[in-house]
Amino acid sequence: MTQAEQTTRPVEDDPDLTRLYRDFADAGLTPLWTQREGLMPASPQPSGVPALWRWSTLYPLAAEAGRLVPVGRGGERRAIALANPGIPGQPYATATLWAAIQYLGPRETAPAHRHTQTAFRFVVEGEGVWTNVDGDAVAMRRGDLLLTPGWHFHEHHNTTDTPMAWIDGLDIPLVDQLDAGFFEFGPDQLATTATPDRSYNERIWGHPGLVPVARPERASSPLMAYRWEHTDAALREQLACAAEGHDATVEPGHAAVRFSNPLTGRDALSTIRTEMHRFAAGTVTAPTRHVGSSVWQVFSGSGTVSVGESRYEVGTGDLFAVPSWAPVSVRAGSALDAFRFSDEPVYEALGLARTQTEVAR
Amino acid sequence: MTQAEQTTRPVEDDPDLTRLYRDFADAGLTPLWTQREGLMPASPQPSGVPALWRWSTLYPLAAEAGRLVPVGRGGERRAIALANPGIPGQPYATATLWAAIQYLGPRETAPAHRHTQTAFRFVVEGEGVWTNVDGDAVAMRRGDLLLTPGWHFHEHHNTTDTPMAWIDGLDIPLVDQLDAGFFEFGPDQLATTATPDRSYNERIWGHPGLVPVARPERASSPLMAYRWEHTDAALREQLACAAEGHDATVEPGHAAVRFSNPLTGRDALSTIRTEMHRFAAGTVTAPTRHVGSSVWQVFSGSGTVSVGESRYEVGTGDLFAVPSWAPVSVRAGSALDAFRFSDEPVYEALGLARTQTEVAR
Amino acid sequence: MTQAEQTTRPVEDDPDLTRLYRDFADAGLTPLWTQREGLMPASPQPSGVPALWRWSTLYPLAAEAGRLVPVGRGGERRAIALANPGIPGQPYATATLWAAIQYLGPRETAPAHRHTQTAFRFVVEGEGVWTNVDGDAVAMRRGDLLLTPGWHFHEHHNTTDTPMAWIDGLDIPLVDQLDAGFFEFGPDQLATTATPDRSYNERIWGHPGLVPVARPERASSPLMAYRWEHTDAALREQLACAAEGHDATVEPGHAAVRFSNPLTGRDALSTIRTEMHRFAAGTVTAPTRHVGSSVWQVFSGSGTVSVGESRYEVGTGDLFAVPSWAPVSVRAGSALDAFRFSDEPVYEALGLARTQTEVAR
Amino acid sequence: MTQAEQTTRPVEDDPDLTRLYRDFADAGLTPLWTQREGLMPASPQPSGVPALWRWSTLYPLAAEAGRLVPVGRGGERRAIALANPGIPGQPYATATLWAAIQYLGPRETAPAHRHTQTAFRFVVEGEGVWTNVDGDAVAMRRGDLLLTPGWHFHEHHNTTDTPMAWIDGLDIPLVDQLDAGFFEFGPDQLATTATPDRSYNERIWGHPGLVPVARPERASSPLMAYRWEHTDAALREQLACAAEGHDATVEPGHAAVRFSNPLTGRDALSTIRTEMHRFAAGTVTAPTRHVGSSVWQVFSGSGTVSVGESRYEVGTGDLFAVPSWAPVSVRAGSALDAFRFSDEPVYEALGLARTQTEVAR
Repeated sequence: MTQAEQTTRPVEDDPDLTRLYRDFADAGLTPLWTQREGLMPASPQPSGVPALWRWSTLYPLAAEAGRLVPVGRGGERRAIALANPGIPGQPYATATLWAAIQYLGPRETAPAHRHTQTAFRFVVEGEGVWTNVDGDAVAMRRGDLLLTPGWHFHEHHNTTDTPMAWIDGLDIPLVDQLDAGFFEFGPDQLATTATPDRSYNERIWGHPGLVPVARPERASSPLMAYRWEHTDAALREQLACAAEGHDATVEPGHAAVRFSNPLTGRDALSTIRTEMHRFAAGTVTAPTRHVGSSVWQVFSGSGTVSVGESRYEVGTGDLFAVPSWAPVSVRAGSALDAFRFSDEPVYEALGLARTQTEVAR
Repeated sequence: MTQAEQTTRPVEDDPDLTRLYRDFADAGLTPLWTQREGLMPASPQPSGVPALWRWSTLYPLAAEAGRLVPVGRGGERRAIALANPGIPGQPYATATLWAAIQYLGPRETAPAHRHTQTAFRFVVEGEGVWTNVDGDAVAMRRGDLLLTPGWHFHEHHNTTDTPMAWIDGLDIPLVDQLDAGFFEFGPDQLATTATPDRSYNERIWGHPGLVPVARPERASSPLMAYRWEHTDAALREQLACAAEGHDATVEPGHAAVRFSNPLTGRDALSTIRTEMHRFAAGTVTAPTRHVGSSVWQVFSGSGTVSVGESRYEVGTGDLFAVPSWAPVSVRAGSALDAFRFSDEPVYEALGLARTQTEVAR
Repeated sequence: MTQAEQTTRPVEDDPDLTRLYRDFADAGLTPLWTQREGLMPASPQPSGVPALWRWSTLYPLAAEAGRLVPVGRGGERRAIALANPGIPGQPYATATLWAAIQYLGPRETAPAHRHTQTAFRFVVEGEGVWTNVDGDAVAMRRGDLLLTPGWHFHEHHNTTDTPMAWIDGLDIPLVDQLDAGFFEFGPDQLATTATPDRSYNERIWGHPGLVPVARPERASSPLMAYRWEHTDAALREQLACAAEGHDATVEPGHAAVRFSNPLTGRDALSTIRTEMHRFAAGTVTAPTRHVGSSVWQVFSGSGTVSVGESRYEVGTGDLFAVPSWAPVSVRAGSALDAFRFSDEPVYEALGLARTQTEVAR
Repeated sequence: MTQAEQTTRPVEDDPDLTRLYRDFADAGLTPLWTQREGLMPASPQPSGVPALWRWSTLYPLAAEAGRLVPVGRGGERRAIALANPGIPGQPYATATLWAAIQYLGPRETAPAHRHTQTAFRFVVEGEGVWTNVDGDAVAMRRGDLLLTPGWHFHEHHNTTDTPMAWIDGLDIPLVDQLDAGFFEFGPDQLATTATPDRSYNERIWGHPGLVPVARPERASSPLMAYRWEHTDAALREQLACAAEGHDATVEPGHAAVRFSNPLTGRDALSTIRTEMHRFAAGTVTAPTRHVGSSVWQVFSGSGTVSVGESRYEVGTGDLFAVPSWAPVSVRAGSALDAFRFSDEPVYEALGLARTQTEVAR
């Protein structure tokens, strides 16, 4: 018998083998040969599946929670997480990413805390809430991306008479799997009730290509707010430059910017990549897949997205999850803007990144 | 009611709330406020627990598997994994690390494959097996650390008439959680049956402080074998230098070396730290804890180790697992050498590393 | 005789020694012991000295050159270099930096070339010239910093009926000393006669914290223009934030920004640091010195500067050179803005950087 | 007249121009257009030229200096520098490198000092001197490379009754041009008179691929001695592996190792590259040139080297200098070993590196 024909797996009804397997179990041992394919598949077999959550479902449920559930110590936030149907029992959007809608009623506050989990907020509609990050008041408005890097104290307060909802993204599943989570309550009193148009960190760091000479060393991005006006302008310019003949876009009709840490030029957050994509009306993107997962939220417009074998008609506010190695393609009906976040910095840091784009025939 | 007194958690028997929670479930949503403490604990609450596996148990079971279970395609390796009792259903030594005893009978071979999981072998006793890594034949002998970085083809062959067993360490749990695993079978025929004393990679890269000018660019360590003779000498010198008054050891009586990539000076493997520790007889180390987990194997000598609340008498070949943030202390009876591997490079790359050493009073 | 009393220097009238020294010379050798102090001084003994050049002198001479000297191939640019009086025979502002006023008459052009020397332009007054960098037309206006990193083709053209002058800064002395200069003529025809308000590189890269996903890899900054409107705003905000109690400035009354490469967060140019400083009226800065040299140009306002033992009354357009290790202090009469460029990235890259600030008593 | 025909250079006998040039001189200004070709040549025009110094000349002169010139404070070292004939008035081997033979008589000592200049010693023959580096006694023996990175105190002492000579290499010209030199005298008493076979730093750091866990952070290489036995073995293995079919050498018959910092895998010194080359008998290497300069010393064997247009017959101990961008080719008569040092790390750090190898037809 050649090696190719033989397998490691023995005849299963051998009484010696039965005894051996029982001895393994007694000794806290598990043989590889009965599990190898499951442990080491030919390509990623993610537990998470493609999944869609509609804004038209999310928002009313969040509003109802606003009516019924107070915000306070312990629960900390009125955030409702997207639970991937492929990951039963865990409130995870993907294997590594947590995503939720957070809702804050008129004049409500959410108390200060900090955690090693990395977080951001993205605002698909509304305004009127400020997030204080280590005491710096950061306004939240439509289209803005707001950061709360790991271990920074943060709290939210709604200064208006209307509610506001937004998306929270965190690396809770990753940090949980890594047993790396630390959490600490902050003061019960708001650090500040100021409502400046622009935060201190934007005033110091929000100038293109300019860094303060008197800069403190810091591990995470000092710029905590990326405003829609800049994101929109950058996307608009990419498409305009492409129309003038420049090689400025990801692919025809597909502009995209990455939110970056101005101290390093790298991702704005250490474990989460954040991007805004713009697809011109009628654009169909080449199916692309990455090792690692992502969550997208449509910011405006409508279209059809394919994620692996699934196909979704999507519109403003709708969110969908992309498991590892599942190809994604976007077909924009109208012009379509979409926010995307992923765990790619993790794979790049660990030497595990792979990407593949289907070449058009 | 002040915010400090209030909590997010509402009265649980409210029928509106019951309906809301049912609507959440129907919509694939999970509220944070009912799970926050579990999701974001004050400090790591690892599922893995301190655990001990004795060599005197492992080796006979591996030998019995050698009698009953052939090695071949599919199962690939006669490797028996340490299954942490705190992680039921998974053959994982810790949340991120897989550890196993692998056994190869006289004249046996284990077929070529490659995978994105990072791997090493450590030899606590015996010799006579060569691991071919991308065609380079690497002898395995007592005290040696042998690398098979991700996506390198490797196969094992026993050239002698006596069996041999050793320890395999991989990042299978990490790569599984990250859905980043790719696996590929190699040729069924051995790449080489050569049995050189030193491998090609050692002949080129195994000279202290010397790198070849004609060096190919590569992501992982080009040095695949770290021989006991060097490790032993380095540890011996640390203790000797300390005795002469130099600040050469981790702490009094505790020498330690890290296996490094000579191209970078950093860890020999991208996701796994590998170290050898030597404790002089009678040494008691300061309890130290890290975010992230580790597995130790006693290489020689005996002593007592404390891992969190557990306490083990250990001798040659015994392995123990250390969960995240559990303090470890070693009390060496005789002189004690121990191999340690951990996932610390992952946390350092992601900005999640923390360590704490208890200061003696 | 103790070693401390003895010196290496022998009696100089020994005939054997005379013959030895002659033999040294014949063999192409030089003894260290007769030169050690000169070769290895206790602290830097720069050949460059503190020096001042007044705009009121420079500009008329440049205009006269505009009348008498055509621009064309060979000479390439109508640039007039600041020659440090301490470096005789070389047109160098400092040991490593070249600085010049460049003047372009109405409708004139300066032909395309490229060189490994790193260059920038800074505009103290006027507008109407575009610099084409690898075919991208970059407007030059008051307060702007424009880059031409090494080995990029560039040409200038004045599209107006009025002349324009600006400052060029290059690392010519450094590259000359390193024998690292390459130079190549470009096409004689202008790459483009477009006169866009904003260049392509600004449209793609000039958004705070945003980088294109479709970004080409490049060694130098992709952002070639830093506009006064942003620089001014950043400085204004630093002083305003400091007035509100933030730790936002270099020292009281002294705001400063560094021009950075958005791909890395590091200096905009690989060998030259570029900064804009703003001193509130009445500010007196702590004397500070660096290893390495710098050149400053007053952009607006007036005051007194001390450089080593020299003291200058300065106003708009005036330039002064600071040799290595000479302390600089600025006393602002009115509010004073000053552009500064230095060679500090070189010293940081080579492990030779030192800085020292005199602490106020 | 087209731009291509016109040049910037005006008619030289114009009285207005004569006055302008005089005004320039009075104002401390120099026009670019009269100097551009000299300042910015098409390719490097180094002042240093190919040059050869014979050991048979050097050693006797050094010995005679040993008879006539004491070693002591002020002169500091009995070192005799190679003065490149293309760089008149300066004791520089190349534009950036200083090289000297240092000679220490029986029982002599050279007093402690430190400087920001980076230094090494290479021993072509003899033994019996120890260099104490920050108090660590480092034996110097044939074939060894010994480091004294910038700002480390060092002193030499001959413990034998025979003289010893070796080569010193430093970056004095570079540091001088950069005005970055600091120098400090150390104690007059020897830090230690110990004569260990191996230094402390070798005992801790001299194990292949192993780094101490208790490692202090440091900017320069912690390994100060690279022993001939390792260098020789590494070169021998490269040639042997190549003979077995591996791609192990720079080119056929040409083995080479680089001395590296085990903390980083990069060059052992921050500004100087150090390498040992071995050429099998009869080998002729492809002409190769680099931006930047180098100095070679034949360690053993003989052959012919071409440097630019020069051609030298060389044997043991002979040194030759290679200016920037001059092609070098070696024709080994017998087997030939040669030590090489260069300034390439400087150019790589500053983005100015270029290399070119002539492809055989």
